[in-house]
Amino acid sequence: MVPLPAHGGQVQAVMQYFPHAPQPVYDLSTGISPFVYPGRMPDLSCLTHLPEEHEEATLRRLAARAYGVADAAMVAAGAGSQSLIALLPTLLQAEQVCILGPTYSGHEQAWRLHTKFVTNVHTPQALAIAATQPGTVCVLCNPNNPDGRLLPADWVRRLADRCAEHGNSLVVDEAFADFEGQSVASALPHPALIVLRSFGKTYGLPGVRLGFLLAAPELVERVRAAMGSWPVSTVALVLGQQALADKAWHRMAAQQAGQAHERLVSVLEEAGLVCHGECRLFTLVVHPQAAQLWQHLCERGIVTRIFAHQPDHLRIGLPAEEGAWHRLSQALRCWQYTAVLQHKQDAG
Amino acid sequence: MVPLPAHGGQVQAVMQYFPHAPQPVYDLSTGISPFVYPGRMPDLSCLTHLPEEHEEATLRRLAARAYGVADAAMVAAGAGSQSLIALLPTLLQAEQVCILGPTYSGHEQAWRLHTKFVTNVHTPQALAIAATQPGTVCVLCNPNNPDGRLLPADWVRRLADRCAEHGNSLVVDEAFADFEGQSVASALPHPALIVLRSFGKTYGLPGVRLGFLLAAPELVERVRAAMGSWPVSTVALVLGQQALADKAWHRMAAQQAGQAHERLVSVLEEAGLVCHGECRLFTLVVHPQAAQLWQHLCERGIVTRIFAHQPDHLRIGLPAEEGAWHRLSQALRCWQYTAVLQHKQDAG
Repeated sequence: MVPLPAHGGQVQAVMQYFPHAPQPVYDLSTGISPFVYPGRMPDLSCLTHLPEEHEEATLRRLAARAYGVADAAMVAAGAGSQSLIALLPTLLQAEQVCILGPTYSGHEQAWRLHTKFVTNVHTPQALAIAATQPGTVCVLCNPNNPDGRLLPADWVRRLADRCAEHGNSLVVDEAFADFEGQSVASALPHPALIVLRSFGKTYGLPGVRLGFLLAAPELVERVRAAMGSWPVSTVALVLGQQALADKAWHRMAAQQAGQAHERLVSVLEEAGLVCHGECRLFTLVVHPQAAQLWQHLCERGIVTRIFAHQPDHLRIGLPAEEGAWHRLSQALRCWQYTAVLQHKQDAG
Repeated sequence: MVPLPAHGGQVQAVMQYFPHAPQPVYDLSTGISPFVYPGRMPDLSCLTHLPEEHEEATLRRLAARAYGVADAAMVAAGAGSQSLIALLPTLLQAEQVCILGPTYSGHEQAWRLHTKFVTNVHTPQALAIAATQPGTVCVLCNPNNPDGRLLPADWVRRLADRCAEHGNSLVVDEAFADFEGQSVASALPHPALIVLRSFGKTYGLPGVRLGFLLAAPELVERVRAAMGSWPVSTVALVLGQQALADKAWHRMAAQQAGQAHERLVSVLEEAGLVCHGECRLFTLVVHPQAAQLWQHLCERGIVTRIFAHQPDHLRIGLPAEEGAWHRLSQALRCWQYTAVLQHKQDAG
C-alpha cells in the first residue's frame, strides 16, 4: 500500500508510486481554490528590506474590512493560519480541549503538545455541553474539513456566548469560510471568540503563508507579542494587500467556486457516488471502496485526498482546467464500468 | 524628540520626521548585508501549491551543509530566526534565563512571556557562572549585536559543555555569524547546544523570512512538531535552495562585506569617531553625542540605529552604493566641522 501523506498536497510524494500516470497530474487533494488571484508578484528588491510596521498595519486594516471586523486591533497576521493554530495552546490556559471532529488534524496536534486532556466530540450538541465545563477550550472548524459541514453563524455565536458565560474560549477555524455566508467574525469583540482565516485557500496562493487570527484586542496584542517582530514576509504583505482590497475579484471567485462545486457534485453523482458537505471548495465522497477509487484516480493522474483514519472518505477539490474535468469524467466512467462488471461477477 | 523604533529598518516611520532629507534615503540602520543574493525570483505560480515535504527536506540538507552540521536531522527551518526565538521558551523548561546583554531585544521579550526570572549579565564570565546554576537557559549572541563582540568558538563550545554538565541549555544566536569564522554549529549534536542562523541578513533578503535552528535531532523534532506543517513559504524554499548551495557567491559576499566594513571604519575614524566590534555587517560607534549624530545623519537622508537604553550607542550598517558612501563622508565632515566650532565656542 502507498504510504498516505498527512495532508493534501504532497503530489510529488504520492505520484512516485504511480510512475505511469498521464501528465500533467491534476491535484484535487486540497481544498485550496484553483482560481488563483492574479496578483502582481513583486520582484527580488521587495525582499531586501524587513517588513515595515506601517505595511503590516495596512494589511491588518484591509483584513479587518475583508473579514467584517470593526477594527484592525482585532486582527493578527501570521505566516499561515497553521502558525496561529500552533501558537494558541501556548497562550490560552486550558484544562481540557474539546474538538468537534473529525477535522483538520493540526488543531489536535497543537493542543496535545501543551494540554493533557484533548478530546474529540462528534456532534455540535456534544461540543455545546463541553462548553459549559470549566477550563475548556472548544475548537470548531466551520465549514468543517473534510466533511464540509457548515453550521449556521447564529448557532456558533450562541456557542461562543455559552463559552463566555462559563469563562471558556471558542476557537472557530474559518479557513474555508471566505466563499460561504456563515462567518462569526462580526460578533467580535467577544470575550470567548477567536476566529482563524486562511489567505492561501481563498486566493489560491497557499505557498505565500499568510493567515489571520481575529479576536478581542487584548488577545490579539498577546498573539502579536508572542510572535515578535516581522511574522509575515514582504511578499505576503504585498500580495495580501492587493488581494484583500479586491472585492470584485472575491465576488467573481466565489461564484466560480460555486459553479465548479455544482459541476463537481454532478460529475460525481453521475458516476453513482454520493457527495457530502456544503463547502464550495471541496466535496466529500463517502464510499466503502474509497481507497480503491483514490488509487484508480492516482493511476489516471488525479490526486485526491484519502484519510488514514476514515478509510471510506475521499475528499475531492475543485478542478479548474477543462483537461482536469475531462480526465476526471473519463476516470469515473471507467470506475463505474469496472464496478458494474465486478457486481455482475459477484452476482454470477 | 523623534520616537525611536524598536528595531532597525522602519525607515519610512523614522523619515517622516525628516521631510527635507535628500533622496534617496540610505538605510544603514540594520546589520543586513547590502550585497543582495542575485536569486531568480519565482513567479506567482510558485505560490499556488503548498510547500512540499521534499522541498523542505532539500532546503534543510543544503542548510546543514552550509552551516557545517553533519545531518539535516539537526536543522529546522522557520519563517525567520525571530519565529524560532519566539518558539524556544515554549519548548525548553527554564527556571531562569540568563542573557549576555545588551543584545538583540527579541530574546528577552520572548523569554519574559514564559519565564519569571530573566536576567542580563554583562560579561562572558558572568554567563559562565550562570551556566552552573540548575535549571538555567543561557543565551548568547555571537557576534553580538549591537557591539559586534565576537567570542571564540572554542570558548563558546566550552560554555556549552559546562551547560551540559549541569543539565542546562545554551542558545547561541549566530544571526550575524555567516561571514565570520567562529560558529559552534560543528559541535552539534551536543546535549546543551542550540544554534540559530539567519538567512535574510547574510543574503540581503530579510523580507523572505527564513531562519534556521540547529540542534540535536530530538530537539529539532520537537521544534518542527511545535511549528506544524508548512512553516516556510515556497518563495523562501526556492530562494533558500538557490542561495545556500552557492558557495562561490557566499565567499565573494563575505569578502565584499569585509572590505566595506574596513572602509566604513576608516570613514568613521577619519571623522574622529571610535568604532567597536568585529562583525563585518555593522560597526558600533560609542559617542556621548550619539543621538545628535543620529539626527544629523537622518537630516541628510542616512538612517542609522540608535538605542533607547544605550543613548551613547550608534550602530551603522554597511553602505553599498557609492552614493551612500559619498553622502556619509560629506555628512561626517559637516558633523566634525560643527563639533570643532562647538568646541571653540565652549573654549571661548
